[in-house]
Amino acid sequence: MQKVLILGAGKSSGFLISYLHQWQGCKLVLADLSEAQLAPYEGLIETVLLKPDDLTGRFALIQDAYLVISMLPAFMHASVADDCLKAGVNMATASYISDELRTIAPEVHKSGLWFMNECGLDPGLDHMSAMKVFHDIKSAGGSITGFYSYCGGLVSPESMDNPWGYKFSWNPRNVILAGQGTARYMEHGELRFMPYSRLFERVREVEFEDGSRWDAYPNRDSLSYREVYALKDVKDMVRGTLRYQGYCDAWHIFVLMGITDDSYQFPLQKGHTYKDFASSYLPGSGDDFRKRIKLLRPGGFSDEAIEKVLWTGLFDAHPIGISEGSPAMILQHLLEARWKLQPADKDLVLMQHLIEYEHDGAKKQLICSLRVSGTDAKHTAMAKTVGLPLAITCRLFLENKLKQRGVLMPIDKEVYLPVLAELEANGISFSEVSRNL
Amino acid sequence: MQKVLILGAGKSSGFLISYLHQWQGCKLVLADLSEAQLAPYEGLIETVLLKPDDLTGRFALIQDAYLVISMLPAFMHASVADDCLKAGVNMATASYISDELRTIAPEVHKSGLWFMNECGLDPGLDHMSAMKVFHDIKSAGGSITGFYSYCGGLVSPESMDNPWGYKFSWNPRNVILAGQGTARYMEHGELRFMPYSRLFERVREVEFEDGSRWDAYPNRDSLSYREVYALKDVKDMVRGTLRYQGYCDAWHIFVLMGITDDSYQFPLQKGHTYKDFASSYLPGSGDDFRKRIKLLRPGGFSDEAIEKVLWTGLFDAHPIGISEGSPAMILQHLLEARWKLQPADKDLVLMQHLIEYEHDGAKKQLICSLRVSGTDAKHTAMAKTVGLPLAITCRLFLENKLKQRGVLMPIDKEVYLPVLAELEANGISFSEVSRNL
Repeated sequence: MQKVLILGAGKSSGFLISYLHQWQGCKLVLADLSEAQLAPYEGLIETVLLKPDDLTGRFALIQDAYLVISMLPAFMHASVADDCLKAGVNMATASYISDELRTIAPEVHKSGLWFMNECGLDPGLDHMSAMKVFHDIKSAGGSITGFYSYCGGLVSPESMDNPWGYKFSWNPRNVILAGQGTARYMEHGELRFMPYSRLFERVREVEFEDGSRWDAYPNRDSLSYREVYALKDVKDMVRGTLRYQGYCDAWHIFVLMGITDDSYQFPLQKGHTYKDFASSYLPGSGDDFRKRIKLLRPGGFSDEAIEKVLWTGLFDAHPIGISEGSPAMILQHLLEARWKLQPADKDLVLMQHLIEYEHDGAKKQLICSLRVSGTDAKHTAMAKTVGLPLAITCRLFLENKLKQRGVLMPIDKEVYLPVLAELEANGISFSEVSRNL
Repeated sequence: MQKVLILGAGKSSGFLISYLHQWQGCKLVLADLSEAQLAPYEGLIETVLLKPDDLTGRFALIQDAYLVISMLPAFMHASVADDCLKAGVNMATASYISDELRTIAPEVHKSGLWFMNECGLDPGLDHMSAMKVFHDIKSAGGSITGFYSYCGGLVSPESMDNPWGYKFSWNPRNVILAGQGTARYMEHGELRFMPYSRLFERVREVEFEDGSRWDAYPNRDSLSYREVYALKDVKDMVRGTLRYQGYCDAWHIFVLMGITDDSYQFPLQKGHTYKDFASSYLPGSGDDFRKRIKLLRPGGFSDEAIEKVLWTGLFDAHPIGISEGSPAMILQHLLEARWKLQPADKDLVLMQHLIEYEHDGAKKQLICSLRVSGTDAKHTAMAKTVGLPLAITCRLFLENKLKQRGVLMPIDKEVYLPVLAELEANGISFSEVSRNL
């Protein structure tokens, strides 16, 4: 049996490991730097405790494998990829193709290796489901004119016991820094740029089939996949992030205050409270924080938005539990305590593609949606929708069903058709609605 | 006679050179990379054409001098300073003390050399005039509780023929990028941070003795001189930039659009007009740009602010004259044509310190103001107020009247008293008004 080395036993590895374990088609080796992370798998599969600086040990493990699945933090993939290339071993990740990976792509291709990336939820399932719809429309003779794609990792309505409708089911830092820089997208055939300072102010409403409505703000670069998706002629193209309605209004207060900034250290002093910290970022003075928040912008904010912000405890005279950090890190520290997924909480993964196209002279719209709820804080929809697509794709590869080689993403029919079918069998299925415009 | 090497014959060197030339106390050598820049000085003083990459030639010139005055762009000072230290030659600039200079400061001091910096207008005249007032108040037994300091390089009212009341009398790039990052200052004893996205929205009104009122926005770091000025216990400390009233309201539109961003290249295409460019940064669509600008912020903007923006031609179907650049560079290119100082235009330099202090139990306020008008576009108030303080300080040094050595700024009595006196004799004088609060 082929040996598969999984690097990293964190949150998102659970579904991946159990899928491949149940399949029984390969020999699994799981390496991590933490004994606690490895403990649940002890006895079930082979586990290896790997010190973070033991690159020799890591290389030996890689060399001994047929396929390496890297679930490590994204910045570590490049060094793993170098080792895999050197050892002539295949590799898979759920992360974006990095510039380093692009650089070695020709060599990977020449070596006949399979380096599959962007194979989780977003990126991953978004590529697969969108490519399938594009292919269906094009092969029926239609031509695509607009593409809107939204995804969100949220908390399920039954576990929504805070006014934000948000808890962390994923890397908190990414949530705090989300959208920084300038968003770019296409609208009415025109290129559009939106700076961070307006991003959460002008949100779109996205409706799902069940009538539920969500807020969406555009991602950093909606156009990066325009060529990959063969959508160079579309007039509208937006990729965005979904939130419960009202979240963005309230988050915009943090943005305008300036406390999502990660570019400098806040001069924390002993005994500093969140109130001291937050007061430094508001106009006016005194303890009437509702009033001071309203001064942030002509026209102020809705009471709902202000209540959300106050609910976090940002204006409480409560000591800040860290001794140094950027404003963003202080805000993250506060929210990690307030937005913690409790053991019985169910998370929620939402995805929606809205495709505008023309067929036989008629304008049409196709909406393709996914809604997955988690079981509890250990078995999240997020971990499932990240881990399963990657696991299934690796299985297909190990079964020798994938012919392409090189540095790849799952945009080819040979990948997305069988993966989407197997996901459906595992309860992850998209619904499709199409209508004339 | 001691030889003084002046590096750079640009805008701000005119007054410096003519002051030192008229003094006749040193032998001047002027080096520049442009024959055109040197031409006006030909025959008057020794001029040297120096190729930008001729570091050997530059070092030979430095070695032959007793004092080097660097009027080069600030980023070049570090390499000049290294040469001066190596050659055992003194040096002076009108620029901020850089980190590189701080690093070699102990060596400079040990070598007994005089490296004087921050000796122009701002930084320069601001340090000198503020230190004099602080010293006067403290030596009379007063204690300072607040310090507000404002400076602006503007256009004189008689030459103000555009709605902004602004023309470039200084580096345009600095004007376009002004305020980016997060401003920090002290207010009511509290540290305050203000992100760029709000900087031009909440301006202060600053009044001069003649009744004129100006807008001021806080500089990046108002607190960097708190220790240097020995103001560690003040409750308020703000340093800011002055503009004609209404300027900031209109500039804020550019900020909210996102077109002062210098962090990425705008995808310019052949035939792109300013209108195409600007439209990419506005909500909505179509040619009603007044309406689309109003959508940038709840509550919109005043008609005056919008008219200022339209006046620039930002929404005209006029080809952009450059083929690549960041949004900030495109905006700069547009404004350089619109805000050009015409030959007969007079510029204006304003400075004001407002000091709050307590004396014999009474709360008092002292306002110290400077207003200098230029003669024409060649003889600007800006060049005069940058060049003369530096020239006079250098003269004092050459006359052996300054005892301090090392990497210095003009915050010592031995410097600022004689410099301010000599400036007064040259028509640059501060008025002082004090009153009880």
